[in-house]
Amino acid sequence: MKLQTIDPRTQHPVGDVLVESSHAQIDEAVSQSTHAFESWSITTGDERAAYLEALALGLEAHRDELVKLADLESALGLPRLNGELDRTCFQLRRFANLAKSGAPFQFTDDPAVAGGPPVGHPAIMKVRIPLGPVAVFAASNFPFAFSVLGGDTVSALAAGCTVVVKAHPAHPQLSVMTMKVIEQVQTALKRAHVITMVQGHSFEIGYQLIGHPSICAGAFTGSTKGGAALQAKAHTRVRPIPFYGELGSINPIVALHAGLNGQEKDMATTLAASIAMGCGQFCTSPGVVLLIDESEHVKSNDLFVSELTTALGAQTPHAMLTPGIRHAFDSGVDKFTQSGAKALVHEKVASFEPKPFLGQVSAKEFIAHSALHDEVFGPACLLVRCASVHEAVLALRAVGGSLTVTLWGAAEHNAKTTALVRAAAQIAGRVLFKGVPTGVAVSAGQQHGGPWPSSTAPMTTSVGDDALDRFLRPVALQDFPTWVAEHQGRPI
Amino acid sequence: MKLQTIDPRTQHPVGDVLVESSHAQIDEAVSQSTHAFESWSITTGDERAAYLEALALGLEAHRDELVKLADLESALGLPRLNGELDRTCFQLRRFANLAKSGAPFQFTDDPAVAGGPPVGHPAIMKVRIPLGPVAVFAASNFPFAFSVLGGDTVSALAAGCTVVVKAHPAHPQLSVMTMKVIEQVQTALKRAHVITMVQGHSFEIGYQLIGHPSICAGAFTGSTKGGAALQAKAHTRVRPIPFYGELGSINPIVALHAGLNGQEKDMATTLAASIAMGCGQFCTSPGVVLLIDESEHVKSNDLFVSELTTALGAQTPHAMLTPGIRHAFDSGVDKFTQSGAKALVHEKVASFEPKPFLGQVSAKEFIAHSALHDEVFGPACLLVRCASVHEAVLALRAVGGSLTVTLWGAAEHNAKTTALVRAAAQIAGRVLFKGVPTGVAVSAGQQHGGPWPSSTAPMTTSVGDDALDRFLRPVALQDFPTWVAEHQGRPI
Repeated sequence: MKLQTIDPRTQHPVGDVLVESSHAQIDEAVSQSTHAFESWSITTGDERAAYLEALALGLEAHRDELVKLADLESALGLPRLNGELDRTCFQLRRFANLAKSGAPFQFTDDPAVAGGPPVGHPAIMKVRIPLGPVAVFAASNFPFAFSVLGGDTVSALAAGCTVVVKAHPAHPQLSVMTMKVIEQVQTALKRAHVITMVQGHSFEIGYQLIGHPSICAGAFTGSTKGGAALQAKAHTRVRPIPFYGELGSINPIVALHAGLNGQEKDMATTLAASIAMGCGQFCTSPGVVLLIDESEHVKSNDLFVSELTTALGAQTPHAMLTPGIRHAFDSGVDKFTQSGAKALVHEKVASFEPKPFLGQVSAKEFIAHSALHDEVFGPACLLVRCASVHEAVLALRAVGGSLTVTLWGAAEHNAKTTALVRAAAQIAGRVLFKGVPTGVAVSAGQQHGGPWPSSTAPMTTSVGDDALDRFLRPVALQDFPTWVAEHQGRPI
Repeated sequence: MKLQTIDPRTQHPVGDVLVESSHAQIDEAVSQSTHAFESWSITTGDERAAYLEALALGLEAHRDELVKLADLESALGLPRLNGELDRTCFQLRRFANLAKSGAPFQFTDDPAVAGGPPVGHPAIMKVRIPLGPVAVFAASNFPFAFSVLGGDTVSALAAGCTVVVKAHPAHPQLSVMTMKVIEQVQTALKRAHVITMVQGHSFEIGYQLIGHPSICAGAFTGSTKGGAALQAKAHTRVRPIPFYGELGSINPIVALHAGLNGQEKDMATTLAASIAMGCGQFCTSPGVVLLIDESEHVKSNDLFVSELTTALGAQTPHAMLTPGIRHAFDSGVDKFTQSGAKALVHEKVASFEPKPFLGQVSAKEFIAHSALHDEVFGPACLLVRCASVHEAVLALRAVGGSLTVTLWGAAEHNAKTTALVRAAAQIAGRVLFKGVPTGVAVSAGQQHGGPWPSSTAPMTTSVGDDALDRFLRPVALQDFPTWVAEHQGRPI
């Protein structure tokens, strides 16, 4: 199969035709990564930082060409893509600092206690070791920040793992150019093959990579279907490996009266922008809004719905990333309307730029129809009218798993807000009390990952400092000699 | 199906015939656990500690009857079982102290940083919440410490989860009696159904439990086959859940010359006792010993083999836990001899007490025959003669995953010991530099869990303080109101 850039704005092929990686090339990339792991896994924090910082400088030095190419392949626009490149460099430098500060080398010192068991025990030092070569599956919707040099790659590198990237076929030329920047750094620093790359359209490439005996973990950002298939493969290998998949999410917002009252228009405007931002192609795009129709609040809710209908109808989303995603958006919206959603904003258009969709259902309908819990990737949102906070809690439980839940108007502590916070935390990795869920800070406390179907490994995060932990396995060293003790958690 | 205690020493049925839990009873146990979770999940550390401490007192108050019943059902002997009950109470009190000291409520405070992204970000408090009702699958070989009130149960409770125990059919009466002790405590403290129990022989009971929509995680100690089957079910649910399985392990020992020279007899005596201890029915029983036959060391190695042959031949293991385990031991030993292992100690007997097995193979044979990497549960060990440290490293890689690797004679820092430490850490959760792997301390630094097939979740541990982490999922609270902040990581 060939790889061809399609300009999303025209859906015309542009640029060179690339060739998919062959079976032998994938083997070679993993073999190079395995060899590079021998020396990369025992680097110091400073050595890892030097490499990551050089990559950030490399991206910045080629900013204009990279961003231009990214825009041609993704249609995401120059301002957003410049911002995304900044974020990517920020991630590189943040994980460089984590490596320098010794985060991967933290250890638990558990000195010997005299006497017999269970009280007495030998000296133990619990360290963490890098897993080995990691397969990173790049996402379509963040051609920098969740792609070749994205958060998965960077956190794995800081942990001491090497990375084989499976580039996303939605931006093949950009992936090749990013890899050229990486190779310049690798040559300059004599760090060959710390990152290698394979690319292609076909599922077989992903399967071969995640099934390769030398691959020790997988990290993925993309659809629930794609992630589930790769996870199944990772789990049924002769030797199963961890698979960190960040999948689809519908990110419910619960709008309590206190969060809407008197600000119906402002909240509607903010929300409409969040739904349409990036043409809704965000894992944290708000797909469901629960309104609590306690009698005295119906009027405010109706006003909010009316304002949202106007505000979202006025949004003009840009072209979607790929023809496939564009097609899936229409199908997803059809499924909503077929499952009982009453359309408030809905215009079927043939253009590459979709019109936003806003639908409305009762909580009872929402709970009963699992098709209404599926993510529709793009600018689509469902309003769910709940008779009570209790019904909203049941609706959240029906969602089951989400990257985020947002609670508007929960500033006051009472039985209702308590019930909502509990229900939200039970199904989500992040609970917001203000604003909209789009925008995921790269920081110490971030948690990007929630129960299935939003991620395959909800005990871990794919964004933020703790993303590092996914690639380090604990090992207890017992009755260790002096020379081992002197390493103090650093590689032996 | 009926449940019947079989005395391992006579293989005769004894005591009452019990009835397997029905489908409806399992549903009821999960439903009770789900209901109990509502209040248990929001208990304080002191409340959890009071419950765990009362359980320890309850076990101690009924020590004599419990230990006597355990011995009747397991044949493990009174001294060992009294020690195991002590360990179980130690675990209960250790996790009580962890709860009191606030371990489950630790949180990351990530204050807001002014400015736009990527540098600026909102305030985030990253807390951890208990998963929900946990299915704990008790083990056969530790009727107290890894059974109804074992480490999995206790760590889940301290985390704020409720537990549905699937009792092990090898000690049904003891499980019932332990549950009676638990129910006394639950009645006295008004904590109904924090622990519930189901029991039976058939696979269906385990499948129903791990597949139940309200169960949020599974914890298992047992065979690779049983664990793999339950894990497959946990992963293919409509909503997959974490499954923490501690499975089989062959626990290689690498004996360098410096670790044997002049102490061949002592090391052989220690090792023989470790192989035969508890009739070899330990997950950390040493199943493989690698000897490095560099020319000047062959003599010492041969002496060690001769001493081990004598010492192991003199061991008289007690009856095995169940007829099934006894039968599997013979089959496993047959598979070793059929796969090229030369028997040094081997006597096939019909008695319930097996004779120990010691076999010998070359490293090349060991590496080539994957049947030689399988755990034989019981007093069996393979000596693997390696031409070099490099060959020993290859043999360790062939093992792939183990709870432990032990390195004798690695006190000196050189290229060989470095290579061995790296290879050992790459395949094991614990690396010992002294003694034998049997004996797993319950302490802050313990890591009991290694790469497949030794466990299903090698990033976690089933023994030691960090066992708690398996049952707490991180949640980032963003732009939280004051009343949420005041909880400081404690349940809302």
